Amino acid sequence: MQVNPYIAQMPAGYLFSEIAARVSDYEGKNPGKSLIRMGIGDVTRPLSPSIAKAFSQAALDMGTEAGFKGYGPDGGYLFLREAIIRNDYQPRGIHLDPDEVFVSDGAKSDSSSIQELFSDDALIAVTDPVYPVYVDSNAMAGRLGVYENGRWSRLVTLKVTHDNHFVPQLPRERVDALYLCLPNNPTGTVLNRAQLKTIVDWARENETLIIYDAAYKAFISNDEIPSSIYEVEGAKEVAVECCSFSKTAGFTGTRCAYTVIPKEVKGRMPNGEKVSLNALWKRRTGSKFNGVSYPVQVAAAATYTEEGKKEIRETIDYYRANARVLLDAFSGTECDPVGGVHAPYVWLKTPKGMSGWDFFDFLLKTVQVVGTPGEGFGEGGNNCFRLTAFSTLEKTKEAAQRVKDAMSRL
Amino acid sequence: MQVNPYIAQMPAGYLFSEIAARVSDYEGKNPGKSLIRMGIGDVTRPLSPSIAKAFSQAALDMGTEAGFKGYGPDGGYLFLREAIIRNDYQPRGIHLDPDEVFVSDGAKSDSSSIQELFSDDALIAVTDPVYPVYVDSNAMAGRLGVYENGRWSRLVTLKVTHDNHFVPQLPRERVDALYLCLPNNPTGTVLNRAQLKTIVDWARENETLIIYDAAYKAFISNDEIPSSIYEVEGAKEVAVECCSFSKTAGFTGTRCAYTVIPKEVKGRMPNGEKVSLNALWKRRTGSKFNGVSYPVQVAAAATYTEEGKKEIRETIDYYRANARVLLDAFSGTECDPVGGVHAPYVWLKTPKGMSGWDFFDFLLKTVQVVGTPGEGFGEGGNNCFRLTAFSTLEKTKEAAQRVKDAMSRL
Repeated sequence: MQVNPYIAQMPAGYLFSEIAARVSDYEGKNPGKSLIRMGIGDVTRPLSPSIAKAFSQAALDMGTEAGFKGYGPDGGYLFLREAIIRNDYQPRGIHLDPDEVFVSDGAKSDSSSIQELFSDDALIAVTDPVYPVYVDSNAMAGRLGVYENGRWSRLVTLKVTHDNHFVPQLPRERVDALYLCLPNNPTGTVLNRAQLKTIVDWARENETLIIYDAAYKAFISNDEIPSSIYEVEGAKEVAVECCSFSKTAGFTGTRCAYTVIPKEVKGRMPNGEKVSLNALWKRRTGSKFNGVSYPVQVAAAATYTEEGKKEIRETIDYYRANARVLLDAFSGTECDPVGGVHAPYVWLKTPKGMSGWDFFDFLLKTVQVVGTPGEGFGEGGNNCFRLTAFSTLEKTKEAAQRVKDAMSRL
Repeated sequence: MQVNPYIAQMPAGYLFSEIAARVSDYEGKNPGKSLIRMGIGDVTRPLSPSIAKAFSQAALDMGTEAGFKGYGPDGGYLFLREAIIRNDYQPRGIHLDPDEVFVSDGAKSDSSSIQELFSDDALIAVTDPVYPVYVDSNAMAGRLGVYENGRWSRLVTLKVTHDNHFVPQLPRERVDALYLCLPNNPTGTVLNRAQLKTIVDWARENETLIIYDAAYKAFISNDEIPSSIYEVEGAKEVAVECCSFSKTAGFTGTRCAYTVIPKEVKGRMPNGEKVSLNALWKRRTGSKFNGVSYPVQVAAAATYTEEGKKEIRETIDYYRANARVLLDAFSGTECDPVGGVHAPYVWLKTPKGMSGWDFFDFLLKTVQVVGTPGEGFGEGGNNCFRLTAFSTLEKTKEAAQRVKDAMSRL
């Protein structure tokens, strides 16, 4: 049995598994310490009442002759796909057909699987720092060359740092695909309409596919910031968009997401012929996936009722207030915080130019606050650190104070 | 954007999508006809009461501070992995560690993703007829060469037909991986312990990985037939096993499954070094999957309570009685039925040597019974036809009668 050598040669483990291991090791050796976890981007508020109720009722229905559902339709139930279009796209003047929306178990699944549609030698670009899934999934497929000195030999990285105000400079070379996450994980920063238009225009000129991860769009605070890439003219020709109920409605443990692939998006065969990515994804998914649990799809649809929307808004506002606490705590310090306004993440410079992992260990050991080291997201995250707004207000305040205290001792 | 040409060049659509399209076309043109569906292997009985109740309660718990769950542990909750080991393996003398069991959203997902662990040029063998997912997933990865005259140029097929009593003859050439589905989909046939041991021994000699799909194991009627490949000595060194709650407990629309990868299973790197497939799968899955909905895992665990087991047994017995009806109806006819004893499928020879699709269209149009044409599962299924036992007893009897009536008119 000859194995895929690219998986075997992957550097280290998945970032969040490494964090979990260090925390667990610390806890084992220091029982009774009160940790505050602001590392992994997991939510803490329960599902809102009307959503949990709909979820629970659908599960009960599965035990009745009349309410039982077997295999669902490919791509998700129509009631959910239509609710998505009606609520997330139509009000923004974006027209989509239900068969351009694919319901899945998570944006992580979709954003890691989309590369199956790329040729083996497709050239990939990502921003740096970056959500590791885009890189890892392409590396495992053998598309990124060799990993040496912290870099992949065949990966184009676009730095997004304090120095360039987190606006990526577009590459000179042609790339086949560019992954963009906006609002950004990990930096919490956004691009405005004009900035996004520049990227879409460039993608159209270069026949570059944009994989647009909008998992955090629910946190966008005003209309200046597009909540879908399709708000930008021409984007339907070049972009697929991955969205999720995880951060919008607390579905990290419930698992539901969707990906939009407009029929206009085309790629090229080796002979130059154009093919529809929507058709390829349909073929791929028909053979490799059997859809999302029916009660989970009912729960996802419940996020779009008037009641559901109101409840969700309250939760998002709660997390947003936490982000505000973090921003206020570190503003005017050498941490120079960004993000947090349209996103649940606040991105800090580490004090004294410490490495992210050193700062991680320092905070864990001195004040028991868990964050995420910037370099876990790539070289561009060196000397940076991510805090999330997903804790409780009390713990967020406490954590901010603890971190400031710890820093004052440096 | 250069696409993966292998997906674009896939022959036709997924078998069950094609069946759905033909049925939908027929229904559109012939409204009011009463169809009996015995094509796709979907169950019809609702979730059993205790399972639906546990599922529903867990969904409700997600709406409470105390009961809410975010991201679950990689590979599934320990309560479920331990229940699987305690019920499905320990009683058969099979020892497994929880981190050798990976909980997923479906056996289709796992059996189509496992090939990501294989090298690009790994040589694959499947039985023929075969569940199409094994072939399609490898074809989309570009591993099967060219499709011409109904065959893949780089796929080893082991015929399983009435002529060889559905016992595959092992290939002379070395292959990297062999997919086995037992009890078999589509033929409903099984192998006994001695027959399976022959295959395991051969796999050990040849360093061939066996992907053992045991999705139908709940239908096994006696202890002569192994319900896990690990009942066979040495299998832990060469086999991964995919199991599912879909057919066991009616989870086709609930979505939960698990795959066992013992730590002993090894593959080889290009330099000959051995690597653990368990470690590769852990790395792959950590980066590409975020686990199964918590309430779904609670529902899966409920299948292992005394109440759950009793309820499930009644449902399986119900379907088994349907299979008996089909076997009895066609025994002694030229259809020469097999399967149906340890599986929910009955496999027939078509009358008058008709092609499977011709017989499909004939039954759909004359007596409105939907089955599955044998050649949809590969060349080895030519002139054969699959009926499922997943309908109601009444409809099964009615369908058997209708098919016999139709055949008498041929």
